[in-house]
Amino acid sequence: MNCSVIGATGYTGIELIKILVKHPNVQISQLTTRQSESISVRTLIPSLSKDIDLKIETYDFNKVKNTSDIIFVCLPHTEAMHCVKEFHDAGKIIIDLSADYRLKKASLYPVWYKTKHAYPKLLKKAIYGLTEINRDLIKKADLIANPGCYPTGAALGLIPLLKNGLVYQDDIVIDSKSGVSGAGKKLTTATQFAELDENFYAYKVNQHQHSPEITQMLETVSGEKVSLTFVPHLLPINRGILSVMYLKMRPGVTEKQIENAFKQCYEKEPFIRVKPQEQFPELRHVQYTNFCDIGFVADKKTGRVIVITAIDNLMKGASGQAIQNMNVRCGFAEEEGLI
Amino acid sequence: MNCSVIGATGYTGIELIKILVKHPNVQISQLTTRQSESISVRTLIPSLSKDIDLKIETYDFNKVKNTSDIIFVCLPHTEAMHCVKEFHDAGKIIIDLSADYRLKKASLYPVWYKTKHAYPKLLKKAIYGLTEINRDLIKKADLIANPGCYPTGAALGLIPLLKNGLVYQDDIVIDSKSGVSGAGKKLTTATQFAELDENFYAYKVNQHQHSPEITQMLETVSGEKVSLTFVPHLLPINRGILSVMYLKMRPGVTEKQIENAFKQCYEKEPFIRVKPQEQFPELRHVQYTNFCDIGFVADKKTGRVIVITAIDNLMKGASGQAIQNMNVRCGFAEEEGLI
Amino acid sequence: MNCSVIGATGYTGIELIKILVKHPNVQISQLTTRQSESISVRTLIPSLSKDIDLKIETYDFNKVKNTSDIIFVCLPHTEAMHCVKEFHDAGKIIIDLSADYRLKKASLYPVWYKTKHAYPKLLKKAIYGLTEINRDLIKKADLIANPGCYPTGAALGLIPLLKNGLVYQDDIVIDSKSGVSGAGKKLTTATQFAELDENFYAYKVNQHQHSPEITQMLETVSGEKVSLTFVPHLLPINRGILSVMYLKMRPGVTEKQIENAFKQCYEKEPFIRVKPQEQFPELRHVQYTNFCDIGFVADKKTGRVIVITAIDNLMKGASGQAIQNMNVRCGFAEEEGLI
Amino acid sequence: MNCSVIGATGYTGIELIKILVKHPNVQISQLTTRQSESISVRTLIPSLSKDIDLKIETYDFNKVKNTSDIIFVCLPHTEAMHCVKEFHDAGKIIIDLSADYRLKKASLYPVWYKTKHAYPKLLKKAIYGLTEINRDLIKKADLIANPGCYPTGAALGLIPLLKNGLVYQDDIVIDSKSGVSGAGKKLTTATQFAELDENFYAYKVNQHQHSPEITQMLETVSGEKVSLTFVPHLLPINRGILSVMYLKMRPGVTEKQIENAFKQCYEKEPFIRVKPQEQFPELRHVQYTNFCDIGFVADKKTGRVIVITAIDNLMKGASGQAIQNMNVRCGFAEEEGLI
Repeated sequence: MNCSVIGATGYTGIELIKILVKHPNVQISQLTTRQSESISVRTLIPSLSKDIDLKIETYDFNKVKNTSDIIFVCLPHTEAMHCVKEFHDAGKIIIDLSADYRLKKASLYPVWYKTKHAYPKLLKKAIYGLTEINRDLIKKADLIANPGCYPTGAALGLIPLLKNGLVYQDDIVIDSKSGVSGAGKKLTTATQFAELDENFYAYKVNQHQHSPEITQMLETVSGEKVSLTFVPHLLPINRGILSVMYLKMRPGVTEKQIENAFKQCYEKEPFIRVKPQEQFPELRHVQYTNFCDIGFVADKKTGRVIVITAIDNLMKGASGQAIQNMNVRCGFAEEEGLI
Repeated sequence: MNCSVIGATGYTGIELIKILVKHPNVQISQLTTRQSESISVRTLIPSLSKDIDLKIETYDFNKVKNTSDIIFVCLPHTEAMHCVKEFHDAGKIIIDLSADYRLKKASLYPVWYKTKHAYPKLLKKAIYGLTEINRDLIKKADLIANPGCYPTGAALGLIPLLKNGLVYQDDIVIDSKSGVSGAGKKLTTATQFAELDENFYAYKVNQHQHSPEITQMLETVSGEKVSLTFVPHLLPINRGILSVMYLKMRPGVTEKQIENAFKQCYEKEPFIRVKPQEQFPELRHVQYTNFCDIGFVADKKTGRVIVITAIDNLMKGASGQAIQNMNVRCGFAEEEGLI
Repeated sequence: MNCSVIGATGYTGIELIKILVKHPNVQISQLTTRQSESISVRTLIPSLSKDIDLKIETYDFNKVKNTSDIIFVCLPHTEAMHCVKEFHDAGKIIIDLSADYRLKKASLYPVWYKTKHAYPKLLKKAIYGLTEINRDLIKKADLIANPGCYPTGAALGLIPLLKNGLVYQDDIVIDSKSGVSGAGKKLTTATQFAELDENFYAYKVNQHQHSPEITQMLETVSGEKVSLTFVPHLLPINRGILSVMYLKMRPGVTEKQIENAFKQCYEKEPFIRVKPQEQFPELRHVQYTNFCDIGFVADKKTGRVIVITAIDNLMKGASGQAIQNMNVRCGFAEEEGLI
Repeated sequence: MNCSVIGATGYTGIELIKILVKHPNVQISQLTTRQSESISVRTLIPSLSKDIDLKIETYDFNKVKNTSDIIFVCLPHTEAMHCVKEFHDAGKIIIDLSADYRLKKASLYPVWYKTKHAYPKLLKKAIYGLTEINRDLIKKADLIANPGCYPTGAALGLIPLLKNGLVYQDDIVIDSKSGVSGAGKKLTTATQFAELDENFYAYKVNQHQHSPEITQMLETVSGEKVSLTFVPHLLPINRGILSVMYLKMRPGVTEKQIENAFKQCYEKEPFIRVKPQEQFPELRHVQYTNFCDIGFVADKKTGRVIVITAIDNLMKGASGQAIQNMNVRCGFAEEEGLI
């Protein structure tokens, strides 16, 4: 299979390249940038081997079209939209790492991304690429909308409980803390070292654009209207998202049932590891991996379940999951290139 | 006034010394350690001025008793108990930074601190030193139980809402994140640089010994049984605690009422700063200060209020508040030595 | 005395404000910015007290002139030049934190700062503000060129040895490591958190613009042509510069002589602390202080002396030394506002 | 080939395991610890795949002997000595990551490691495992003394210049800065997060036990008595060593000759990357890799060459090089498991 990466110089593009150069089943055909000068991959990713001899070149639609079977789109939100449409019309398999095809309701885009969606019909066709949940649909998908980093961590921790009706779907708190690479490469004051070092704070409190994405996934799974509170924070570290979810158990639900729900959902999943009782995830355990670690505790006294998940925002939260989706779509071993 | 610090070599002791050497109304009489060799303060705190000429000496009860009016006790939990009793019997004013006199019910000590309380009568007399709440009692107190770091940050954010009956007291989530100095100076694997750097995780989930302390304060204020979920996390930074509280509004409560509750409680407080709408605390803004910053947002859709507080765990969360309490007790200006 | 800060929103401006608001001998008259909107100081520096009520306003020459006795200029290099000239002509005392009046030879500016110096005559009049060395000149100076951060740390470690002819002046290596706040507030990729975190490297190897400034100071002191190699590095921390100097002893020089040279020079200095044998400076000991800590060791076997200095780049390396210079110039106690 | 790791729970042991589990040519037979309870590898290294099912077990000489062809010894200095001797006598191939067989002169051990060497004869037989220099000897070695982290970074930068007589061998300064994992897992105050975070300092100035190891390697290569000054520093990061070497060129030597010396030595080396002119190594580029990056600049004015090298202390500075040596010794592709 020949694959290309559009927008290869950002953090998710870099992470994809690192995986693709070692992946035994694929060839890299094109790596592109919107900039006018080409860049050597060894300059962009100096940790790579001496004999890697790839270039990132100025984007050329036809060149990509003529050489690629699979296309990873790593463009900013609202820019990816058009590029995805063009390659879809050209009959390619697309894995879109932007948010542009994640929300089913076109009407949400003006609200959360300040842009009208140009291709609502295509939106309907896109498959949401949370691998563990949509694996069968992904196998046949031509357009995979790769999930956001926060939604991946949150949804994987919530789905087993909502699917089995163990907790109330209208009383959910998600308190997430992310490393700074999630903010991308754009220069901002907030992401300058001198501003973030030794600092910590919540941002976009109750207003983060990933809220509707989480809600949509949870409503699909639970079949009911979901109401949630989502507060993201910025950690003074590079990689990783820890999400703590506070939920209310439905009457009569036991800790055992909760344990079983996680076990049943994830026992055979290669990238999900449910922690034993009294153990909880740490970012160190998942950084630079495609794992999602999950811990939980049920508290009879308050009737609350606390679920904690940890992922690497650039791996399971972006490029790792994109590769996992490619593996599923192409019939490769699901862990290929990822372990 | 002559003051002494017992257990002066730990992080809270060091912070006290830094403030006391510049405080215009007090003299340091004794700084003590359980170790057998005396240590120069300049060696322990190299950032101090060249002409500081103080020594930390092996603890000698009589020496402290004969030279001190006020005694700060910075010993570990369960060790402080006896020392406090002795100085109380000797008629001294004591500010105890340990947890040993914070909980009113002696029966809680075996549960949360694995030790029976030896002086339940004295426990009853101790005044809980959350300055803003108990100022009038502190003015006449002989034994001030200085609050824990997590309880300070959490209680200051919750009290205005509970006191005014604006939120349910039996549906409270406290999600706190602390810098590592809160763990003290004891050598542990978890606090080694190589283990914590770039890491982040929750610990003692629902089992932290500060839970009953928070509950007690909130029950006193609300006059009702409080039920809460408390999850602390360890941040890879040195100082500061950010606490996010998730609360449910009682029917009919408006954001304006919530704003007014905070304003009314804290407008005249020198160390509490309530943020304007849409602004939230950052640890950077309170580190190395005695401030508690508070932000909040009420969400009509979910009926939830989110309250966020930030403090420096060694200042408002420990030694800064201890000095504030001394100022109140001794009739000094409340900000003396702290601004 | 009334003092103003021009360019008050950068890191050195902020540090000056923090000190000036607590300084008992001065009043702040104007804080200015080149931006068109005024900013509240409490917004810029949230760690300040609740009752600070200062504004940073758009720069207005006449307003500053009419209200100020002393003017701190914190503008970028090559921009400060003109502003300094105007206030000098208006008869004000100026402390310039830029590099624009540090080098005596106007011909060096085009080489190292890519700009011709517009006022070579004024350049001659400026006094280089390394307080410990030029104290007597500073007492009467109208234009004080406040030293750079690297030159301060390096020169203070080298001067005692060069002045006393104990080491060769033509065989000097200076290996310095700086925290990132030294790079200022300008947005750059290199200073983004995700790029610097866990990273470390040398930059401008042998080409840093502070080289001629160090050379000039050392030639003044030694009376001979100085030859040096200067390699700065960027540390993934906020504040502090550690400089290690490798020197060759002249024949017959003993460790005792070296010790005496440091002692004699610095014994009475309030801000210089020479470490005892076998002890060496740490950045922690000088951060947020105006101290310069110095350690050294002489190695008979190789004939080398190693001198290590530590300063806070924003304090002794910039704003702290500027205040120290103001204190000297105005006849205040030299430590006022700084301890 | 069957390989075992003795002392598998330390940082170098962990790093070895991470590589060995993916290495296609070897089987892990025994992982041992001095502790009395066995530990699951998945607990020790949670980033590993779900289906790894290895245990670290209490050390048992016979068990290791009977199942292993190659033995990696990761014991502390002075403890490794005896274990190495026993396995050598049992006819095994040993790669010793301790310092116990690195120095050729037994008399240096009491001076630098406070212990008499028990097996001076075996010391003579050991091959110093700096792969690029001793590759031919390593191919036939039965006991490989894997180099220290500082010596690896320093020697690789110095050897091309000394071997070709381009610089003076008696005027060498090595200024090295290391991440904290180099200090190992032992609990110390200096390596606690709260002590090292935001800190930086030099330690063991001119007294580090790696000095004689560097000297020995350089004397072997240059054939002359070497005199050097070595100052290590501790960085507040986890991994990586940046070494800056200050050297004096012999008369008439040109930058071109220096460039050629590096090129000639390293052009074909898979793990050494010489930077183009004006570019210098960064720790980020080598972390988690087995690369050694080298940059240099020759300064005609001062006659000095500055050489900068960067390695990951746990990879090329320890476990990565150990695997590289195993690959060479066993005739595997040299990059196997490392790229």
